[in-house]
Amino acid sequence: MSLGVAILGSTGSIGCSTLQVLGRQRERFRVTALTAHSNAELLQQQASEFHPSYIGIVNGTGDGGRGTGRGVECLVEAATHPDVDIVVNAIVGAAGLEATLAALNAGKRVALANKETLVMAGELVTRTAREGGGEIVPIDSEHSAVLQCVTGRRSAELARLILTASGGPFRTWTPERVAGATVDEALRHPTWKMGKKITVDSATLVNKALEVIEAHFLFGLPYDAVEVVVHPQSVVHAFVEFVDGSVLAQMGFPTMELPILYALTHPTRVPDAGTRRFDPVAAGTLTFEPVSADLYPAYGLGRAAAAAGGTAATAFNAANEVAVELFLAGKIRFGRIGETIARVLDGYQATGAGTLEAVLAADAEARRLAREAACR
Amino acid sequence: MSLGVAILGSTGSIGCSTLQVLGRQRERFRVTALTAHSNAELLQQQASEFHPSYIGIVNGTGDGGRGTGRGVECLVEAATHPDVDIVVNAIVGAAGLEATLAALNAGKRVALANKETLVMAGELVTRTAREGGGEIVPIDSEHSAVLQCVTGRRSAELARLILTASGGPFRTWTPERVAGATVDEALRHPTWKMGKKITVDSATLVNKALEVIEAHFLFGLPYDAVEVVVHPQSVVHAFVEFVDGSVLAQMGFPTMELPILYALTHPTRVPDAGTRRFDPVAAGTLTFEPVSADLYPAYGLGRAAAAAGGTAATAFNAANEVAVELFLAGKIRFGRIGETIARVLDGYQATGAGTLEAVLAADAEARRLAREAACR
Repeated sequence: MSLGVAILGSTGSIGCSTLQVLGRQRERFRVTALTAHSNAELLQQQASEFHPSYIGIVNGTGDGGRGTGRGVECLVEAATHPDVDIVVNAIVGAAGLEATLAALNAGKRVALANKETLVMAGELVTRTAREGGGEIVPIDSEHSAVLQCVTGRRSAELARLILTASGGPFRTWTPERVAGATVDEALRHPTWKMGKKITVDSATLVNKALEVIEAHFLFGLPYDAVEVVVHPQSVVHAFVEFVDGSVLAQMGFPTMELPILYALTHPTRVPDAGTRRFDPVAAGTLTFEPVSADLYPAYGLGRAAAAAGGTAATAFNAANEVAVELFLAGKIRFGRIGETIARVLDGYQATGAGTLEAVLAADAEARRLAREAACR
Repeated sequence: MSLGVAILGSTGSIGCSTLQVLGRQRERFRVTALTAHSNAELLQQQASEFHPSYIGIVNGTGDGGRGTGRGVECLVEAATHPDVDIVVNAIVGAAGLEATLAALNAGKRVALANKETLVMAGELVTRTAREGGGEIVPIDSEHSAVLQCVTGRRSAELARLILTASGGPFRTWTPERVAGATVDEALRHPTWKMGKKITVDSATLVNKALEVIEAHFLFGLPYDAVEVVVHPQSVVHAFVEFVDGSVLAQMGFPTMELPILYALTHPTRVPDAGTRRFDPVAAGTLTFEPVSADLYPAYGLGRAAAAAGGTAATAFNAANEVAVELFLAGKIRFGRIGETIARVLDGYQATGAGTLEAVLAADAEARRLAREAACR
């Protein structure tokens, strides 16, 4: 029997890659629901190829019809659809949180590309998964790498994670030059082709701070056991150190299709010939560098917020989302992203992040503060 | 309850490392039997520290006493001792085979550093393990790496192995210069401190051919799915590719203590602080090169013998042992090691390797041919 898959954000980068994978795995999976933000044309194309029983568009025009949702409610409708076993949550930013909670409450597997979900509300999301019988499986390549290394191992055997960061396009720049980088420069990622928001987050290394928080909640390790190393070639995706001192790593040429497939099939693996075969000689020289605090000030802010606990990580994430939006719109310079986050977090009073209300309130408040701080 | 461990070859390099590990893990393991080839003094020291109930010396003088074996029979006695759960077989060369078979027949776990066992008689050894209820767990760092990557996975998920080779001391030499290398030069291994025979085998890359054969029998993969890549830093010990295209690797600074510990505790891991903690930044730059057929002619001979099947691998191993012995004794030049193997295998008629008699006969015959060929 094939498993039903819902894709939230099917017209984005991860959504399209997921459909690539599912197109090769039609015997194991069927596409039962698709939602898009506003690209109705591509959504219709996908629907006519994969025949989902539900499609939804958050912000679209045109005709509806049977099995078609409209508005932000379509995310929860798709995520809780009875014919859905696995929800691929590929929505950028905070909008994905409610759908994730609804899916976990309905006992579904959530394949999570929306890392903001765990950053905003890690405590709430993991508790909801536990109580609702759902399961969170990461799509992020670094967390998929960790999961692949620890599958079948007791969590007590895990000692330390080292996530890799490409270092983004500014790795070899001076901090002064980085502060004035243009949108075009920030979007020129050296190894991964991704959406705009995440590409900017890779340039600031905020992405890696978000991933540290995500890893903490996914794998239950304290923050001081989740390290980051800069690895410009993006071939090693993460290292896992076990209690006996041994280290496993997952490696491969950069592609999201592999972690997407693994999120669908975990804990097993299925034959798939869609991705470029790994070859260590072709991978060339692999290098590793410590994270430069001068070059990536926002990274340290994210780690500090995570360590502070409660809604501090929520506020960090919200401030970053606002600042990146303003940067991409040409309203603020690149260096102002980190400055905005610093201003929001400076003197920030974190509260408990155990309920959706508390999380959404902290998110809204931090966004307000960030808009103010960004243009000060 | 602690597990009883016998160490065959306790005064050698692997034997001493095993005792280092066991000295840190006294709650989980006790040393119940020790055997040495001829170093009676060190054996006595070890015995007075670890209090085994049996000690044996293959080629020693001096007093015996209760619980003391003499001659080659002591290997089987130690391996089948009722108080032994795990046999660490760290004997160099073919002498370890009978003890391995006896231990497997007695239903024990054999932690195997003696790779010649599987090369000479892989079919016989794996069948004996199956029938006797014993288990073979590799100590070789490359095979331990593979085992660590596949533990808990179904064998059908395994697609390909890539073992790493340091390339030995002659990696950057010309083939002409290598042919005339001295014993001292051959023993200067760049990354691993090991016994003499295995160090020479690393210089010829025969070691890696033996490991390809070992991997074939341990993990049940065809030879064309067991590849080798030269990796001078010896940080990645092996890569495992799964059917979905994903690759795991085990990494670490070179130490045998880690694979020894894992062979004792597999499939679980236990806390151990004895080895240097891995740090990717300190590991520096990692590089990978194809194996040069010109520089390592004996490697290709080993792969060809393996592919031929039956006793061809037995003959390859025997010819190599004889040639290395003659090289270490100053009787032949380095280049003659590969030439001797080639002469023995040229026109060699392999027979079935399913019985101990067939294997021992092939081994003896190949040794005779090798002695003749080496000095021709």
